[in-house]
Amino acid sequence: MAVSETHLAIDRERSRQRIADAVAHLTGPAHTRSERAICRYAYTPEYRATLDWFIARLGELGFDTWEDPVGTLVAQNVPPGTPVLALGSHCDSNRNGGPWDGTLGVVIALEVCRLASEHGLDLPLRLISFLEEEGSGFGQMLLGSRICAHRVEEADLRERFRAIDDGRPFFEHAEEAGYEPARWKEAAGVLDDISAWVECHIEQGRVLQDASEQVGVIEAIAGYVHGDIEIAGRDDHAGATPMGMRVDALSVAAEVALELERLARDAGHGTVATIGEVEVEPGVINVVPGRVRVSLDVRGTHEPAFRGVVRDVARFASEAAARRGATASFGERQSVPATAMDPALVDALDRAAREAGAAYRRMPSGAAHDTMCVADRAPCGMVFVPCRDGISHAPDEEADPADAAVAAEIVLNALARLHGG
Amino acid sequence: MAVSETHLAIDRERSRQRIADAVAHLTGPAHTRSERAICRYAYTPEYRATLDWFIARLGELGFDTWEDPVGTLVAQNVPPGTPVLALGSHCDSNRNGGPWDGTLGVVIALEVCRLASEHGLDLPLRLISFLEEEGSGFGQMLLGSRICAHRVEEADLRERFRAIDDGRPFFEHAEEAGYEPARWKEAAGVLDDISAWVECHIEQGRVLQDASEQVGVIEAIAGYVHGDIEIAGRDDHAGATPMGMRVDALSVAAEVALELERLARDAGHGTVATIGEVEVEPGVINVVPGRVRVSLDVRGTHEPAFRGVVRDVARFASEAAARRGATASFGERQSVPATAMDPALVDALDRAAREAGAAYRRMPSGAAHDTMCVADRAPCGMVFVPCRDGISHAPDEEADPADAAVAAEIVLNALARLHGG
Repeated sequence: MAVSETHLAIDRERSRQRIADAVAHLTGPAHTRSERAICRYAYTPEYRATLDWFIARLGELGFDTWEDPVGTLVAQNVPPGTPVLALGSHCDSNRNGGPWDGTLGVVIALEVCRLASEHGLDLPLRLISFLEEEGSGFGQMLLGSRICAHRVEEADLRERFRAIDDGRPFFEHAEEAGYEPARWKEAAGVLDDISAWVECHIEQGRVLQDASEQVGVIEAIAGYVHGDIEIAGRDDHAGATPMGMRVDALSVAAEVALELERLARDAGHGTVATIGEVEVEPGVINVVPGRVRVSLDVRGTHEPAFRGVVRDVARFASEAAARRGATASFGERQSVPATAMDPALVDALDRAAREAGAAYRRMPSGAAHDTMCVADRAPCGMVFVPCRDGISHAPDEEADPADAAVAAEIVLNALARLHGG
Repeated sequence: MAVSETHLAIDRERSRQRIADAVAHLTGPAHTRSERAICRYAYTPEYRATLDWFIARLGELGFDTWEDPVGTLVAQNVPPGTPVLALGSHCDSNRNGGPWDGTLGVVIALEVCRLASEHGLDLPLRLISFLEEEGSGFGQMLLGSRICAHRVEEADLRERFRAIDDGRPFFEHAEEAGYEPARWKEAAGVLDDISAWVECHIEQGRVLQDASEQVGVIEAIAGYVHGDIEIAGRDDHAGATPMGMRVDALSVAAEVALELERLARDAGHGTVATIGEVEVEPGVINVVPGRVRVSLDVRGTHEPAFRGVVRDVARFASEAAARRGATASFGERQSVPATAMDPALVDALDRAAREAGAAYRRMPSGAAHDTMCVADRAPCGMVFVPCRDGISHAPDEEADPADAAVAAEIVLNALARLHGG
């Protein structure tokens, strides 16, 4: 085919080996606080050692490296102010994490930088490893990229965001680690001059694995609503209260769970909805539950579809509760809009995947990623690689470096094409 | 009416006042370990003070009092070996309890003893206050009456039953309190020579209150099955897993909850079924639940009806799980058969209630009571009085001493009639 004549094939076995070695190295005792899992987060020696490992590798490639005022790592092979092709992810983990989530994205970014150099492509590249994506240090997800995007308040950083380990504020910890958090607004510079951003990540789902595909080209990152439905019935003695006299909050919750499932299915557009938490009061075997709280996680890339599920299930809960003499109320914790990827970048990644001969699909990302915080400032794309059984955030998280090598080839080609014209 | 000519009317206002005073006295600081609730249990000073208060009152009435080898209180106005009419309940509470559960039954028993004396009835009476009905000391419900009925094993008392407060065995605590637990089998003597046993208790439900009735004459104490249904699905990322690829254990649990409710309603015979505990794993907002455990509490006085609900819901759970690619299994914790009250005693109580002019009904007891452990050894009856909104096991538990006075009149008349022939 004509198109494939412009495709740059890489030595995938060599890239696979380098990626595997890098991920394996970063599971070593210097890089995790746990003997049984990957556990690294901001301002710990293990996180520092991980940044330092990337800094050394990037230095070998001739990149300049620096960190923003709170610790997001930036590396670049052209002078400041030059438009760049940016790529990366995060290299912190959750506290009981695996080797691949986040870290693989930075490792692939490093591999793309290396390949660009080896192939003499002369691309203006920036690698970014965002701080605290998982929130293991301060309980705040996407913290580094939110700081870059100014999606935080200074009071949060000074007071409200506190270390899980010792309860002291983010600001104090950042200062102790040698950063200048008072200058946090300058972190916006991390996102300056980016003409395209690509993040690679494990899928954290089973779609690619079950379809035997090697990569997914992301079209949009799902938006979501997190909230709770609280149902207030009446607790009664389980033996002494006839069925007809009960106001059982759990029965309402059961109806809500099944209706939520039905609504999400009917909403289409890949909308998903989950009840992950159930809290029952008083929560003893011989008392009819008087109060139940269920969490809601509703996501999708189609705003009217997923927001409609939230609206409809909240209304259903009120009506179902009323039918039983109970009450129900919905409270939102957080709402994040869907983030569309840049169509030209999606097309470039799609074309590169096709030309690489990869088994791939275009798909949404159900999970949140740092890329959501980049999207206001630059055209964005993402590439997923499969992970075994969809497992992530667990020590037995597993991915195939061979898929990652294909992803590297795809990203390299897409960026080269965008740069070339 | 001819029948009512034999009915002995009491001074209900006087009895009401005495009952109210007794219950109020036993809420004093000497009788509870909590400032906000009634909290008394075996071998505490507060429990000892409560037994001593009853012993003093019974002594004033000329009763001999003693305690069995572990601490169940017995008082009797005739020599050992004489056939007796027995009555009582328990005067321990749960840890966050109210003034009425159990204690009211002993107070009414005391009032019946006093009325028998005041009216010169010359009834051979035994008052019993069973140890540890609520299980607040050692986590074992009906412990005192189970010991009397030999429904425990010695190894349980020596080793397995341990104090909630310090984890030391029941035997050690009983010995330190001055008892002789090694002679526990002699507690069977508490139930010797009983020609009829009547226990009064608050209803712990809303049936009597909602029907504006003063007393309930119990026909049977519900048997029950306590157990759990464990559902094993698969935990998946809530964002990255399409609805059609999920094996959501909570959805199965929701179907089970609604089916359980339907089965109990259809079973009739007053069968009731409750899910009071729900445990979700991993139990976080953004993960599809991979495992859910729900407790089952299924009760009724009609054995085939309530046991059929357990059988059917267990089968339903397996089938509902299989439809979703999950599995479900039922495990029984405990099963107790229904306990029928003695028909002649029920009739005597019913007749006395009618002749007392009380608004009453014959009804089942959904809750378990010490009477279940007396039933192997003696004809049994129970009388309920309403409690406000069905609340029990809580500081705001409330009952009306006027209803209790009516109950005392009914019990006095029923026992007198049985004794008289």
